[in-house]
Amino acid sequence: MNTDFLTKTEILKINEPLELDCGKVLKEYEIAYETYGEINENKDNCILLLHALTGTAHAAGYHESDTKPGWWNDMVGSGKAFDTDKYFIICSNMLGGCSGTTGPNSINPDTNEPYGLTFPVITIEDSVRVQKRLIDYFGIKKIIVAGGSMGGMQALEWSVSYPDYVQKTIIIASTSKLSAQAIAFNAVGRNAILSDENFNNGNYYNSDKTPEKGLAIARMIGHITYLSEDSMHDKFARNLQDKENFDFNFNVEFQVESYLQHQGQIFVDRFDANSYLYITKACDYYDVALKYGSLEKAFERTHSKFLIISFSSDWLFPSNQSKEIVNALIKTGKDVSYLEIQSNAGHDAFLLEFEKQTKVIRSFL
Amino acid sequence: MNTDFLTKTEILKINEPLELDCGKVLKEYEIAYETYGEINENKDNCILLLHALTGTAHAAGYHESDTKPGWWNDMVGSGKAFDTDKYFIICSNMLGGCSGTTGPNSINPDTNEPYGLTFPVITIEDSVRVQKRLIDYFGIKKIIVAGGSMGGMQALEWSVSYPDYVQKTIIIASTSKLSAQAIAFNAVGRNAILSDENFNNGNYYNSDKTPEKGLAIARMIGHITYLSEDSMHDKFARNLQDKENFDFNFNVEFQVESYLQHQGQIFVDRFDANSYLYITKACDYYDVALKYGSLEKAFERTHSKFLIISFSSDWLFPSNQSKEIVNALIKTGKDVSYLEIQSNAGHDAFLLEFEKQTKVIRSFL
Repeated sequence: MNTDFLTKTEILKINEPLELDCGKVLKEYEIAYETYGEINENKDNCILLLHALTGTAHAAGYHESDTKPGWWNDMVGSGKAFDTDKYFIICSNMLGGCSGTTGPNSINPDTNEPYGLTFPVITIEDSVRVQKRLIDYFGIKKIIVAGGSMGGMQALEWSVSYPDYVQKTIIIASTSKLSAQAIAFNAVGRNAILSDENFNNGNYYNSDKTPEKGLAIARMIGHITYLSEDSMHDKFARNLQDKENFDFNFNVEFQVESYLQHQGQIFVDRFDANSYLYITKACDYYDVALKYGSLEKAFERTHSKFLIISFSSDWLFPSNQSKEIVNALIKTGKDVSYLEIQSNAGHDAFLLEFEKQTKVIRSFL
Repeated sequence: MNTDFLTKTEILKINEPLELDCGKVLKEYEIAYETYGEINENKDNCILLLHALTGTAHAAGYHESDTKPGWWNDMVGSGKAFDTDKYFIICSNMLGGCSGTTGPNSINPDTNEPYGLTFPVITIEDSVRVQKRLIDYFGIKKIIVAGGSMGGMQALEWSVSYPDYVQKTIIIASTSKLSAQAIAFNAVGRNAILSDENFNNGNYYNSDKTPEKGLAIARMIGHITYLSEDSMHDKFARNLQDKENFDFNFNVEFQVESYLQHQGQIFVDRFDANSYLYITKACDYYDVALKYGSLEKAFERTHSKFLIISFSSDWLFPSNQSKEIVNALIKTGKDVSYLEIQSNAGHDAFLLEFEKQTKVIRSFL
């Protein structure tokens, strides 16, 4: 089993306009994507993977320059949960992202300058519309969709928006709408970016000074919500960093502070602050029940089978939010399997508990 | 029952040096305090109230200019939990605070400039040492101590540091040490202040520009931890502010965003960013078990009776942290009562659920 396969991000350029939920139109756009495995003759062995808040199209394998593989490498490959021996697997970067798909850091063809905050505000539904163009490009009519966290919200939206396409839907550590608390965390993160002295109303692409302090703070807040209290305790407890006594100053002292600072610092090298604004806002807006009147009415449209997975210690998208989806699917007579995986890894469990997920996903597929 | 009594903050100036845990010495300092009720002849009817992170000496009644009463007015007064008909009640502002007691915004007598970050880093124990000077000033030898949140940590410390003084200790919604998660939230809040373009290494007292954006972000993070997920949902759900449709921009749209923004804005008018650094750091450091070897060893010193109260939905200082204190007190044979109050108000419950608290506190006293 060769797990160290080389992969490459491809770009699909779409020269047709895209109407967005906000009422604006993108005249043209690009979609960054990767594929793993081979498409079969009937083109009915495709799995579309949807990434989380800060993910990329690079779900698996290694790029030539990589020291670490794609973000779901443990789940994608020969013999893995998403088995490249059987399936043709596609993963694309989200609309509004900063890893190849058109977003606020892309060049606006009307001005030849980066969009910045002139980029239209996008929704989860808009992102799914863009993914649909990619699927059309491959000529695929039957599809399986799967994702964790925000990826799960997109998988859910796929099942409702394109019921004739979606055969199976896997929604992991996700929700049909963010809670007030989750919106609150996103809002404070955005506030940190918008308050950064270098934000300059989103026009920082041609500057040495970028809003990296604000973006780092947003990321630190995010990381607290990705771990459970227990996993933070297990990792760090109240241990000090590289010493035994207090410094009595405001430098980083506790290991948990050092961890968060590190997560903030490495994030600003790979992510764009404007994209963070757009994508968190898309998450805040998403509420499939609001659009159709209720979750049940939304799910009446689907012909998909569903697998819903939640994690016992996830407090960002807690199990009761998955159960709400499950109950609505049961009420509308859909075929649904649900598993709550016992884990103390918090929301991040969907990136870590791959053995438990592999078993249930392989069986569902 | 006159609940609208007028009160006034007094200042006690201490001209003796205070040795601090960090090894530095404060040559002189002031203590801001209020008192309610009358001290009796034996001076044995005193209750010392300890405030939470951003509290003040103004626990009850109205100042002449007040539109709202002190922070625990529902709990302090004639016939209330802390009954001014029976008890002489003292509340002082914490060392390092910004409401009258010496802190980073005070004038350093050596330089005639505000201390700023030259103010020594203080601990919960240092704050208790300062309160002890105030008690000595009144000639009090027997005392009851009570506080919520960080105030509970100080009450706990009183019982251990001054076992011959403390007769009864009331610890509400508190802990004997912050969890890694609680330290993480404090650390991100400090990071937001330290990253603010106007922070200027703490020297902003003579400037028009103060680090209010960073302080507001710290406060917003704090407020998320003070409410439970349920109480946020009950208050705000996913309701929009003053409209029915999305704006598709990055302004405040959801009510929960508006609430947090408001909390941040009103906070910067009443609190000093440097004090926020010092006091959160004092909380992070506090760990009574670390100093004495274990919680049990710490409590072996005390002669106090204890009342411990926690709230079912408090996830900042959850009930299991109160139970840890209770268990250690039981193991050392102390007289302890414990009540977990069912409430969905989160950590803030200690400022809101006064009826339930009143009953048990009056009975304990």
